[in-house]
Amino acid sequence: MVRKDIEQMTGYVPGEQPRGTKVVKLNTNENPYPASPKVAPAIAEAVGSLARYPDATATAFRLRAAEVLSKDNPDITPDWILCGNGSDDILTIVTRAFVDQRKAVRFAMPSYSLYKTLAQIQGVVADVVDYEADWSLGESFSADSEDVCLSYVANPNSPSGTLIPPEDIAKTADTIRWPLLVDEAYGDYASTNCMKLVSHDEKIMVSRTLSKSYGLAGLRFGYLVAQPQIIEQLHKVRDSYNCDALAIAAATAAMDDQDWLTDNLAKVKTERARLEEGLQSLGFETVASEANFVWCTHPSGEHEAIYDKLKSAGILVRYMTYPWQGKSFEGLRVSVGTPSQTDALLAILG
Amino acid sequence: MVRKDIEQMTGYVPGEQPRGTKVVKLNTNENPYPASPKVAPAIAEAVGSLARYPDATATAFRLRAAEVLSKDNPDITPDWILCGNGSDDILTIVTRAFVDQRKAVRFAMPSYSLYKTLAQIQGVVADVVDYEADWSLGESFSADSEDVCLSYVANPNSPSGTLIPPEDIAKTADTIRWPLLVDEAYGDYASTNCMKLVSHDEKIMVSRTLSKSYGLAGLRFGYLVAQPQIIEQLHKVRDSYNCDALAIAAATAAMDDQDWLTDNLAKVKTERARLEEGLQSLGFETVASEANFVWCTHPSGEHEAIYDKLKSAGILVRYMTYPWQGKSFEGLRVSVGTPSQTDALLAILG
Repeated sequence: MVRKDIEQMTGYVPGEQPRGTKVVKLNTNENPYPASPKVAPAIAEAVGSLARYPDATATAFRLRAAEVLSKDNPDITPDWILCGNGSDDILTIVTRAFVDQRKAVRFAMPSYSLYKTLAQIQGVVADVVDYEADWSLGESFSADSEDVCLSYVANPNSPSGTLIPPEDIAKTADTIRWPLLVDEAYGDYASTNCMKLVSHDEKIMVSRTLSKSYGLAGLRFGYLVAQPQIIEQLHKVRDSYNCDALAIAAATAAMDDQDWLTDNLAKVKTERARLEEGLQSLGFETVASEANFVWCTHPSGEHEAIYDKLKSAGILVRYMTYPWQGKSFEGLRVSVGTPSQTDALLAILG
Repeated sequence: MVRKDIEQMTGYVPGEQPRGTKVVKLNTNENPYPASPKVAPAIAEAVGSLARYPDATATAFRLRAAEVLSKDNPDITPDWILCGNGSDDILTIVTRAFVDQRKAVRFAMPSYSLYKTLAQIQGVVADVVDYEADWSLGESFSADSEDVCLSYVANPNSPSGTLIPPEDIAKTADTIRWPLLVDEAYGDYASTNCMKLVSHDEKIMVSRTLSKSYGLAGLRFGYLVAQPQIIEQLHKVRDSYNCDALAIAAATAAMDDQDWLTDNLAKVKTERARLEEGLQSLGFETVASEANFVWCTHPSGEHEAIYDKLKSAGILVRYMTYPWQGKSFEGLRVSVGTPSQTDALLAILG
């Protein structure tokens, strides 16, 4: 009875989430530290009004986020922001709004495997191009098409941790005729971002999540920044109460604590450098990361064996394999943890 | 740039949700009482692990819900249950899974106006039939079609509060060739329900929400009961972490407190009877309700004026107008509140 597209697809498989075990979890890019201490009291206060529906457009969050974002990007006001139940919800909303039946989406791989799943669910073609060898976007990403209705680009990208410079994203948007969703799930860890491009081109939309840099993966809260005439259309596609009252309260409190963010980012970036150096000293090749994880490969090619050995030692990293440039490409993606987690990882690898 | 279907639609408009005012809110069928006292501690405990992704399939909730549901329906095990970010998320998932491009969904009106919105977003035809004058489903609801991929039926229905007997739902499912989603958002208030039909026909799916009877509208938590081979396909369509950790913990605690539910249902049903009688004594015609609201009409036909007067007196009810059986049909839907809220309403109406 289900649609053929659905029956034939395998479905997106998220990273392992072991429960109730003492594993050193470096596989899904969660924050190794708990969220801002302002979050718990905000949740406790919101519990009292759960019998009522939440604010349908998460106004409190949008007000606070616009204040924060407008420091660098003065055009951004609350009506430039759409909130979602995690940035996966944002990706789904954008896909459903822009991508017509039998058409296509375009993205470069290796990247977030959900993009293909989104195409399958929407029943459209995944027009997949390869990243260049240096993780830049080649000309094929911008090649004209009658079918493509939307492109996604994860920036920083996963698994590579690399960043396409905003000026290159702007050039890409100038070339294509369809909207470009810049997925900045890891944007807070990067040296720059694409938020400022949104003012200049309505085709550019930027999504963010509170799952990584704000330490709130369990909360499911993400948001999109786009020009208001785009946001207005996207509201029609989301579930009318897509963000719950506790998530709105918690996300607002987290966004309100930029000092916590600054401090947490500094800790993670310091540890990222130590992780990169540690891996290199053990013979791994690493890609310079602009995210909260490090992509590494080993000359032995024994990535799956290394993953297995780490797992049996209680350390979970992500073993990933992709087709890329006509070959099978594989490696390990290691989330940045606490100093003691890095020590444990490097000790076992050693 | 957005799809034409989206550009041309107006979007679903939820009921008014005034913030920070002392309004007597009888317009969106929320529970007038706070949720089980077990909910707040469960949320407080879950706050500590928000840095991690939630359990992707809400296992704790499914285990507890299966225990509760299997008392009357022994076949139901956790793999018969799919959790969603409110039952709106469930409706979206089911629509996306079953309804192929350019096909159709069928439902009877007057009913939940979201069904039409779901069709518009999916880019398919809304094959709308009329309820019969006694709020039963006529033959047109079961008429064969090459295009219909899914039917929805709200049972109890809104705005009428009426219930289609399960044996009639079973007959309908026997007749049609496509799946039937029985939307039991108000099922806990009814004298019977369709849960037992799920075992007998894989075409029948039943959705529930914790927004109404469990007093958790702000939480966004709903679930679907269907045969496991159906649930397995639907998992592919949902966002992989569609329910957050706080909502899972709270919903599990609420489901765990069936004594609270029994007590709360008794209070609401007692008040429903008093509301019906009170409205009748003031000259309103009411439809016998199996839900937590009462649909009423007044011989004067001045429903909008009554709505406005109530609103200016600080009492919010829902004024609704629909095309039905070739005419314009209107009335007021009044949520069951506390005894003092009923008193306030009846005093103003008097």
